Order: sequence, then C-alpha cells, then structure tokens
Amino acid sequence: MSDQNIIPGYIYGQQPLSSPISIEELALLKQTVLFTDEDERLLRLASDVLADQTEAILDVWYGFVGSHPHLLRYFGQQGQPDAHYLAAVRKRFGQWIIDTCTRSYDEDWLAYQQEIALRHHSIKKNQTDDAKAGPIIHLRYILAFIVPLTITMKDFLAAKGHDADTVAGMHAAWFKAVTLTAVLWSHPYVHLEEF
Amino acid sequence: MSDQNIIPGYIYGQQPLSSPISIEELALLKQTVLFTDEDERLLRLASDVLADQTEAILDVWYGFVGSHPHLLRYFGQQGQPDAHYLAAVRKRFGQWIIDTCTRSYDEDWLAYQQEIALRHHSIKKNQTDDAKAGPIIHLRYILAFIVPLTITMKDFLAAKGHDADTVAGMHAAWFKAVTLTAVLWSHPYVHLEEF
Repeated sequence: MSDQNIIPGYIYGQQPLSSPISIEELALLKQTVLFTDEDERLLRLASDVLADQTEAILDVWYGFVGSHPHLLRYFGQQGQPDAHYLAAVRKRFGQWIIDTCTRSYDEDWLAYQQEIALRHHSIKKNQTDDAKAGPIIHLRYILAFIVPLTITMKDFLAAKGHDADTVAGMHAAWFKAVTLTAVLWSHPYVHLEEF
Repeated sequence: MSDQNIIPGYIYGQQPLSSPISIEELALLKQTVLFTDEDERLLRLASDVLADQTEAILDVWYGFVGSHPHLLRYFGQQGQPDAHYLAAVRKRFGQWIIDTCTRSYDEDWLAYQQEIALRHHSIKKNQTDDAKAGPIIHLRYILAFIVPLTITMKDFLAAKGHDADTVAGMHAAWFKAVTLTAVLWSHPYVHLEEF
C-alpha cells in the first residue's frame, strides 16, 4: 500500500494542496482530543500490527457500508453501486489507515485531510474517480463513522499478541486520531467562522 | 440532579422545543453508530454506576476546560470566566450525563438535543443564563470533545466493581451515545442540505 504510484488519486504531499487550518490550530485540537507523543508512538506500533491486515479491515468496513442502503447510496446512483468508484476509494482508504498511524501531523498531512474533506463534500465529490454516485456524503454520517472506525479496530489491534494494556493504548490513540480526522473533514460543511 | 425544578434552563420535554431531525433519521444514525437495545440496557446500568459520581466527573471535565484557555474562553470574556454561567451549565451538564443514560431517544430527547445545540451556537449562546462569554462554541471543539467525554468516563464506570466485560460494554455504549449526541449538536453549524 505504500507505493503511491499504484493508488490513483492519492496525491499526498503534492502541490497545490493546502488546508484552511494552521499548525497552531491543529495543536489546540490535538490537546482537546488528548493526543500526545505517546499516542504518536502507539500509532507507529499500531501500523506494524495493522500493515498486513488492511484488506481484512476494509472487508469489515465495506461489509458495513454495503449492508446499509443509507450509506451505500453515497457510492452509487439509483441503487446501483459504482464498482469502479468503490474499488478506487478502497485503495486510498487502506493507505489512509497506514498514513493515520505513520505520518507526521504536519502541513502536508493537514492539506491532504482537507483534500479528503473536499472529496466527501459536493465541492469535489466524484471528480477524482469520475464516479456515478451521490453528490455529497452528508456530514452526519462522516461524524457518526467515528464509532465503527474505532470499535471495529480493537480486534485487529489485538491480533498480534500484544498485552491488554498495549492494545488498549493503541486503540485509544486510534480513537483520538480518527476523531481528529473527522473534525478536520467537517470543515467544508460548516458555516464560515463557525468551525 | 433528577429534580428539574432546581436546574434553571433545563426545559426537557417542554413546548415549543422541536428538532429538525426525524425519528426515522435518528434510527439511521443509531445504526451507523452501532447503537442497539443492548447499548440502551448498558446505559441504564451505567446510570446506576454514575448517579453518585456526577460531581466527580464534572470536576474532571471542568478541570480540563479550566486548564485550557482555548476552551475556557467560551465561558468568559477578556480572560474573565463567568462564574455564574459556569455554575449554571454545570447543573445541566450533570443532568445531561444521567439523561444520556436513562432517557428514551424519542422526539423529546431529539428536541432537547437541538436546544442544547442552539445554546452552543450563536443562535442561543449566552441567552439562557445571561452569560458574559464568547458568542459561539466553535464546532471543532464540540466534536473534539467526544474524546475527553469518552476516555475520562472509563474509570468512573469501573468504580463500582463490575467485571471488565461489563465495564467495556458500558463504556462502548457511552461512546456511541456521546458521538450520536455530538452529531445532533452539529446541526446548526452545517450548511443547509449538507448535514
């Protein structure tokens, strides 16, 4: 998953991406989600644990979306899922798991979160993959997805024999990172000056 | 905390509160945060566990806000916290813990979540308590607060000697409920048709 050349639309670190959120604002958000250097260390450990499990994780998440029409509609039209779109998103979603665990949360990371945010929003929805799908993913479900993205990760984090405290620590770090990401992804949906 | 007559501004179940979110939409959100009847049962159990700990929980949360100027500013002006406002919110916040565990998630519950949402937003910020404080709580921190509201609850849920699985179950149910609530509280901040 680490060779970005094989993931269409994965333009991490490229120009002219940018974020409306500054590093100083990110620092305050990290404080608010209790994110520390120890969480960064635990996410690095999590990336080792998860690296060969990303397809299994995506199977769970895609199974969840696929079994709920109110979610699947964002990936298709008139009840018809866009298989090409689902496959293209899947590759980037797998890379997102690893990036969330291993990337420095710097300007490049902020900028790519904004790009993902815009791709969920009508501003860029469906453009990257020429998808035939709903014109926007409503914010309620992006935020609600904090729960399945967090809860389903526990078993995968526990799968490599780490002790319960270490698994709980990796899981908490993941929860913080996912929530932080969801906050950033909400930006395009929110009234000016209210984010 | 259960006598609403002693909590100024606590108008749960009263007219003319209403929510823009229907029961059918709530049902889809509950599915998305994996909220089931078992979670409802676990929250009822949690309410027994938490009932005599709400002040201690609020001490932790208020300590967190109070030690972070980027959060405390929402409760004051020019670096001066509004003690009356903080005290008034605290009573309702304690009641919110119990309500989140014990109330049926029905129209009345939806309507009161919307009232809370409006009180965070400039639409109704500071009105209930005639507060001298920032004119809006920015959405980023309402969403980011999912983490501290969830993580800090673990020890309180474990404080009454339940086995680890039951504590984990109550904690997961609380996490789902907090996330669901934060989703509902985001509504006033979001562009029309994008929620």
